[in-house]
Amino acid sequence: MFRPLLKYDYDFMAARRVGRFGFKDSEISKLGGKLKAFNKKHKADKNNPDLSFCRLPYDRDSVKQISKLARRLRRKFKNLVVVGIGGSDLGAKAIYQALAGDFANLKSNRGKNLKVYFIGDTVDPEPMADLLKILNLKETVFYIVSKSGETIEPLASFLFLRKKLIWKTGYKKHKEHFIITTNPGKGVLFDIAEKEGYLLAEHYAGGGRFSVLSVNGLLPAACAGFEISDLLAGARAMAKNAKRNNQWKNLPFFFASLQYLAYKKRKQSISVLMPYAYYLRNFAFWFRQLWGESLAKEFNLKNKKVNLGLTPIAALGPTDQHSQIQLYNEGPHDKIITFIKVGGFPNNFKVPKYKDSAAIYLAGHKFKEILNIEQRATAVSLMKNKRPNGAIILPALNEYYLGQLFYFFEMAALYLGELLEINVFNQPGVEQSKKYMYGLLGKEGYEKDKKEINNF
Amino acid sequence: MFRPLLKYDYDFMAARRVGRFGFKDSEISKLGGKLKAFNKKHKADKNNPDLSFCRLPYDRDSVKQISKLARRLRRKFKNLVVVGIGGSDLGAKAIYQALAGDFANLKSNRGKNLKVYFIGDTVDPEPMADLLKILNLKETVFYIVSKSGETIEPLASFLFLRKKLIWKTGYKKHKEHFIITTNPGKGVLFDIAEKEGYLLAEHYAGGGRFSVLSVNGLLPAACAGFEISDLLAGARAMAKNAKRNNQWKNLPFFFASLQYLAYKKRKQSISVLMPYAYYLRNFAFWFRQLWGESLAKEFNLKNKKVNLGLTPIAALGPTDQHSQIQLYNEGPHDKIITFIKVGGFPNNFKVPKYKDSAAIYLAGHKFKEILNIEQRATAVSLMKNKRPNGAIILPALNEYYLGQLFYFFEMAALYLGELLEINVFNQPGVEQSKKYMYGLLGKEGYEKDKKEINNF
Repeated sequence: MFRPLLKYDYDFMAARRVGRFGFKDSEISKLGGKLKAFNKKHKADKNNPDLSFCRLPYDRDSVKQISKLARRLRRKFKNLVVVGIGGSDLGAKAIYQALAGDFANLKSNRGKNLKVYFIGDTVDPEPMADLLKILNLKETVFYIVSKSGETIEPLASFLFLRKKLIWKTGYKKHKEHFIITTNPGKGVLFDIAEKEGYLLAEHYAGGGRFSVLSVNGLLPAACAGFEISDLLAGARAMAKNAKRNNQWKNLPFFFASLQYLAYKKRKQSISVLMPYAYYLRNFAFWFRQLWGESLAKEFNLKNKKVNLGLTPIAALGPTDQHSQIQLYNEGPHDKIITFIKVGGFPNNFKVPKYKDSAAIYLAGHKFKEILNIEQRATAVSLMKNKRPNGAIILPALNEYYLGQLFYFFEMAALYLGELLEINVFNQPGVEQSKKYMYGLLGKEGYEKDKKEINNF
Repeated sequence: MFRPLLKYDYDFMAARRVGRFGFKDSEISKLGGKLKAFNKKHKADKNNPDLSFCRLPYDRDSVKQISKLARRLRRKFKNLVVVGIGGSDLGAKAIYQALAGDFANLKSNRGKNLKVYFIGDTVDPEPMADLLKILNLKETVFYIVSKSGETIEPLASFLFLRKKLIWKTGYKKHKEHFIITTNPGKGVLFDIAEKEGYLLAEHYAGGGRFSVLSVNGLLPAACAGFEISDLLAGARAMAKNAKRNNQWKNLPFFFASLQYLAYKKRKQSISVLMPYAYYLRNFAFWFRQLWGESLAKEFNLKNKKVNLGLTPIAALGPTDQHSQIQLYNEGPHDKIITFIKVGGFPNNFKVPKYKDSAAIYLAGHKFKEILNIEQRATAVSLMKNKRPNGAIILPALNEYYLGQLFYFFEMAALYLGELLEINVFNQPGVEQSKKYMYGLLGKEGYEKDKKEINNF
């Protein structure tokens, strides 16, 4: 079966459309010389753990293991609760919403497919309390994910839930209700798992925000009943595309080039992602972390202080036509906008005819047709206001194209970091606040930080 | 019963904390002279429909009528579906999430309180299809809200749902399942309501994004079982505060002054709202519309082209510590951050002790205490990186303080618009795309727009 690549339409990003706020082919061309060198480096660098995300689409062994585990969990449980934060949470959440929708957990049951809940991205006690009121714990398995095994939010939630489960099922049985993914060999979570005998699901060595196609994203997806091998097949198609050295054909590099020019040459430092698909809201939040953490750095690779950063914004069409489009059309020229359009929605709902009414113009139009018209009208009006905007076009919203989409953005982030000459894989700017937290919570070794923060 | 005002802590916004990126009392002082004139104008201008939001907190008659209608709906139905977009949707959604939480609709029932769903903010057919699968239509009432009565998304959804209901309940009975709020006397929705005899719930004359304390927000809130008179009592307390002519005591004006200085004097054009409360996520989206539409304008009041605009960002703590704080700490100096802290969460969940573990430092800490520690650590680390940040402190998350919070931001938007010399109540930048949409959908009178958009 031939399945095409997603498309990227950059017509309204071009200078011929939006004047000096847009981009000329000649300046895009100039960046092309770097692509071959980047690709060569990626190929040579294949043992670099940071680049291990590039190997995930080919990891058929993991798919087998994850599928096997998921089959077992689907037989035993009704609910899976993901307890993670950031990269351990956003990818799985994006997949579940994109493919199961917003109302899946409201169905009386999902057959053999588990309902998936997300709770570990906060220590707010209220959602935890509310979730516990509606879950039958005996039918629930908890998937605890923390790369370091030290992350405060999932760790606190895990210890709390562990006690609840022991109380509910007894000590011996409670162990079956937890699956843990963490850095093997070190960290609190690993120590506890080893000592108590919780099941450790294989760990992905790379960075959290590049981990959606590892067990972090795939185990919840498989439990929810999705074809994880198709997610990877989509990612492989995009990976193949990203090996091309032609800058006009390599989609992630081309996309990265425009983001680079916008930031460096036009002071358009805000990058909006605006899907016209209700169930891609969480995808936009996944993107927001990828851009926010990867592409903002105080120092560049030459250790020069740059305080560089593209600010990502997660938007939604048509909802934000009634919230943000006023700003995007009339505000400062500091944004570029990327729409996501979905070619084929399964539902064919139409607006019915209402007799003698000024609404007659709506009659007979399919909902999905109106959605596309709204996107088109918004894009053209932005273009007329000299606001550069492009569109990613997905043939359908399914595992395969979602796999393409994830990998497209991951590779685009990698290329964009290389063009900007920064390290996309670290996040030094969050270390200080972690130390303060440890200090205030009384963790050993952070007495100095405690003293410091208490001075303010 | 004495209930205090929310607090605004601006310590880390000050120049003494964040150097040249922060603000000196002397420059704040200079703006104070304008406050008295603004307040005088508001008082004199009380028949201005734009300012009618200032009268909502005192409208006890509406509360009575809305409560009466809600009592009737609560007896007859189990579900209320809000069909609106933008200002007709975001406020009601913010209230419902803040007070009922994320999992209320997953309970088998809410007793006499209706479950509230939101669907009209898109024409994506998928959520509509999914929602219809789980709702018992006979137990469901639809609340259709559109100021103009012409808004495409709720109009399309309404016509579609109307047909479904007729099919399900018969023509005569289906009318009981719809309540409509729209501009009386004109618009398609009004015409249909008159002709068919749907119940028209009183309309609020002011702008959508300032309408949360009108029937738009209050009817869903009352149906959900919340004390709407307390929402207004909170708003009145803030309204009283906003009448003060002392710039250091008038909280919305003081907040607006800092946002103004950030934008005009420091090129900090991005305003982040980051609640440390999981159920204030939708509140941040309500804020995002208020700021995005009110405070971005191509022309100022003197008709000078300014392309001015504060870009609002809806963030969330601690979730975004693992997504956006890297950017906020190390990226460009283009942001100011406002936290919302909640003083008292009802739940007292604690982290249990786990023997012999490096997690011992967490043992015994309450979740809500950890949440506050996380906010504090984040605020201090931002301050040390010279990133101005302030905090709104709510004593509790209930109707009363939510009412204060809504009114605080509404008045702050009004003052900020006055400082920036723009009209906060219009949104000319969305008109062109509406015309294109009408053109593409074949509405009469928009043939020229159709021709124009088809040229691109």
